[in-house]
Amino acid sequence: MTSVLSIDARSGQPRDLGVTDSTPPQVAALTAAAVSAVPWLRAQGRTGRAALLDRIAAELSSSADSIVAAADRETALGVARLTGELTRTAFQLRFLGGVVRDGGYLDIIIDTATPDTPMGPRPDLRRMLSPLGPVAVFGASNFPLAFGVAGGDTASALAVGCPVVAKAHPAHPETSLLIAEAISRAVSAQGAPAGVFGLAFGYEAGIALVQDPNITAVGFTGSLSGGRALAGIASARPRPIPFYGELGSLNPLVVTSAAADERAAEIGTGIAGSVLLGQGQFCTKPGLILVPATASGAAVTTALADAVRRSAPGHLLTSQIAAAFTTSTCAVAQDPAARVLARADGDAGPGLTGALVVAVPAARLLDGDADGLLAEHFGPFAVVAQYADDGELEAVLAAVEPALTGTVLAAADVPDPALATVVELMSRRSGRVIVNGFPTGVAVSWAMHHGGPYPAATTSETSVGATAVRRWLRPVTYQNTPQDALPAELRDAAVPGLPRRIDGTLTIGQPVGLAGHVIGGSEHVAAGRLEPDPGRQQPG
Amino acid sequence: MTSVLSIDARSGQPRDLGVTDSTPPQVAALTAAAVSAVPWLRAQGRTGRAALLDRIAAELSSSADSIVAAADRETALGVARLTGELTRTAFQLRFLGGVVRDGGYLDIIIDTATPDTPMGPRPDLRRMLSPLGPVAVFGASNFPLAFGVAGGDTASALAVGCPVVAKAHPAHPETSLLIAEAISRAVSAQGAPAGVFGLAFGYEAGIALVQDPNITAVGFTGSLSGGRALAGIASARPRPIPFYGELGSLNPLVVTSAAADERAAEIGTGIAGSVLLGQGQFCTKPGLILVPATASGAAVTTALADAVRRSAPGHLLTSQIAAAFTTSTCAVAQDPAARVLARADGDAGPGLTGALVVAVPAARLLDGDADGLLAEHFGPFAVVAQYADDGELEAVLAAVEPALTGTVLAAADVPDPALATVVELMSRRSGRVIVNGFPTGVAVSWAMHHGGPYPAATTSETSVGATAVRRWLRPVTYQNTPQDALPAELRDAAVPGLPRRIDGTLTIGQPVGLAGHVIGGSEHVAAGRLEPDPGRQQPG
Repeated sequence: MTSVLSIDARSGQPRDLGVTDSTPPQVAALTAAAVSAVPWLRAQGRTGRAALLDRIAAELSSSADSIVAAADRETALGVARLTGELTRTAFQLRFLGGVVRDGGYLDIIIDTATPDTPMGPRPDLRRMLSPLGPVAVFGASNFPLAFGVAGGDTASALAVGCPVVAKAHPAHPETSLLIAEAISRAVSAQGAPAGVFGLAFGYEAGIALVQDPNITAVGFTGSLSGGRALAGIASARPRPIPFYGELGSLNPLVVTSAAADERAAEIGTGIAGSVLLGQGQFCTKPGLILVPATASGAAVTTALADAVRRSAPGHLLTSQIAAAFTTSTCAVAQDPAARVLARADGDAGPGLTGALVVAVPAARLLDGDADGLLAEHFGPFAVVAQYADDGELEAVLAAVEPALTGTVLAAADVPDPALATVVELMSRRSGRVIVNGFPTGVAVSWAMHHGGPYPAATTSETSVGATAVRRWLRPVTYQNTPQDALPAELRDAAVPGLPRRIDGTLTIGQPVGLAGHVIGGSEHVAAGRLEPDPGRQQPG
Repeated sequence: MTSVLSIDARSGQPRDLGVTDSTPPQVAALTAAAVSAVPWLRAQGRTGRAALLDRIAAELSSSADSIVAAADRETALGVARLTGELTRTAFQLRFLGGVVRDGGYLDIIIDTATPDTPMGPRPDLRRMLSPLGPVAVFGASNFPLAFGVAGGDTASALAVGCPVVAKAHPAHPETSLLIAEAISRAVSAQGAPAGVFGLAFGYEAGIALVQDPNITAVGFTGSLSGGRALAGIASARPRPIPFYGELGSLNPLVVTSAAADERAAEIGTGIAGSVLLGQGQFCTKPGLILVPATASGAAVTTALADAVRRSAPGHLLTSQIAAAFTTSTCAVAQDPAARVLARADGDAGPGLTGALVVAVPAARLLDGDADGLLAEHFGPFAVVAQYADDGELEAVLAAVEPALTGTVLAAADVPDPALATVVELMSRRSGRVIVNGFPTGVAVSWAMHHGGPYPAATTSETSVGATAVRRWLRPVTYQNTPQDALPAELRDAAVPGLPRRIDGTLTIGQPVGLAGHVIGGSEHVAAGRLEPDPGRQQPG
């Protein structure tokens, strides 16, 4: 029985948590309990599950002090940052509850029966998204709360009716345990079976979870190597399951020539702030800064370097992360074309890591052996590359692996001739394109996308925002099914506020049949018309 | 250079098509041309791509005679069936054109900037789905047109802006070639670059396509073994890509006790028709028929057996398929618990295959070693299992692998006490649940779902219907991006008919800003309100 140790991120002191790594029978018991909790989550309906999320948010908030204290001890991220992250985590739970109350996520499409299509009679077909079943969640090291045991993966899965078995992160097991206890209090308070949420400990338990036949999907936030390995296990199962991995990325940032001319110092300082945020331990940290090889571009670089030099060394999340950071960034700094642009000046005492930024000509990135310069280095590090012209910039962006984000700092006061092209280039290889802002901020909202082509993520889905719920759902179409045997949202009766596409026409809160038989499947499909919700006030 | 041979499905006679298997450089040239066609497809916009699909449909229709003749020779499916399938294929192209004209598939979500959320200021965020890039398409043996080179995979990919490289099916290369020529005429007529569509021949070329770095996703309809192998190649790439495989399934069908009492003969005859349709070569063929162990259930079985005996042996798609069918069904018929219920009476001359149905007690399926009885056997074959009671029925349905479809034949004239439970059980393990109908008909419509949990399909997506386009898209969110640098559909201006969720509120054809700042990300999210399209007529 391996004891679970909680390591103080600053002192390195271990503490025995009094729990042990989950054994295979324990993992199997957790997933079996999760299966048995599926009917309860279904029976709650959308409003009942939203109420559960609200209650979890409340329990987290009322345990905020102890959770933040444990997280600070285990991650060294600081009480202020972690307090904000707890607020965000509670907000996210309530937001996703709102998303399921809204119901649009069900993506309901109803084609009523008709004898009259170009292909002959068509039966009644009613489609909606349904929950997959129990899912496994692997949280991140760098956001122990918002991407942790009660983070976006867990919240979005519970919201749509999927029980969760989370794996405690080895870098913050006590935080994981305290959050799990808060969730369990909420589960109990709502009268839910305990299997709605479970927590497993240990490396072997993580693998067992991904292989467990009761698990129907996996959410993962972490490293490329770990994610790829688990994705391979998920796809090698007798019955493969989707593996939603958010793996981080290089997040290129481009400063246009006009932007550098306009506000070099502001831009350089701003970039440094984004690189250094949370000691550089953001999935969205800009790791490659492309600046024009002009005098203004040099001024951007100078301001960036000054800010990096002034930054204070700090504790990284774990000693393993700190060691890996030092090793990998040292190697990159020794590239013959690279020069050290700036190092944090402050005293790097025991366990402290200082920021490092190196500079290379952009042409170096096109040599074909610049993998180290083009890789993500988790921690306070970035590569600044001076590009000679638009052609070189375009070539570098084509050489960069797809990313979570692509950022453009463009002229703000005058039209920037480079803007549209760089936005277009970034959009082809990023999940989010940011103009005149920084990538290290991910709003929890309807339109957010936090993902991107591989290696940023293993699928096209997002782990943040309203559409994160899509990961835990699959469509089911009911053909000629009597009203009583249909899910409530698919019946003829109006469901106030619920969006449904009926016979090709998007409606909200409308009963089936009112709009008549507008056939979506005609030879020339009419553009979707809008049938408003009669129970709601209409503008003008 | 391996010549491509077209085999007459009835006579076995080969014909040299005058083309050879595609070499690795030829495959690379096809995918490079596809990459270079991406900008043209983007520039056409939604209406331009819909026009391309309309034109392809027209070219198919004007070449119908030669395509149907070739397909009949290569598949033995018959001119009547293939003529209908060509009509369906043209309809499907036009339907998917209508889906992109509608624009709802873009799943647009816009959160305008606000200083005022519980998490502080939020930037302007605008999300829509964007095309992945060139995709590879592997069509099916059993629908050489509707799931072929110009089938649903190709149509849905082109519709959203993804160039296609199709692999010609080895069982119908001439059909594939004629369809490719029709597509190329349409591509040329629309002024498109040839790389919009390409055709490759040969087994090795298929593997090269899945491995090709320019290919961003794969659509596949075929066998479990072939699909699983290609899926493994797709996920083992240095940069894995999504593999959308539709692999077929057992498609259980349940006759309730009340339904058997009501109309046994009609049901038995109807089931036989569904099993025998297209010589049993449908992905949705019901392969397991569960009937009650009652006198009425026996009457269902008798009617089914009579119809099977009266059926005429026919040619299967290929001699390999016929040989595999004979081998696998012979083995199943020798199960100690099985008895042959009916064989086609007619003369099974050279190359002809007759239908076979075997019967077993349902309890046999629960023994744990009934894999053969619970497997899909492609061709005119089914297992009839008599279930003793609801508990046994439920246990059997739990033992069946997930399927494309699950069918319930229930009492039609009176309420059927078994209906709701069986629908619920089927919905947990099927992509489509059919009541009082047969699964061997897949309407091309907004609400159709043709997929299901593994092994029915390798993902949760559908290969038929409006939402088939989802497979070729990924979300991109634009943050604080100026109007000029945004895709047209994300700009502030109204786009007539276009559904967009703006600040949490679903709208159609509305400009951004008109609805004011209804914040979706508030602590308690308001249910989506509806903002109608002022340019369209509203009902009552």
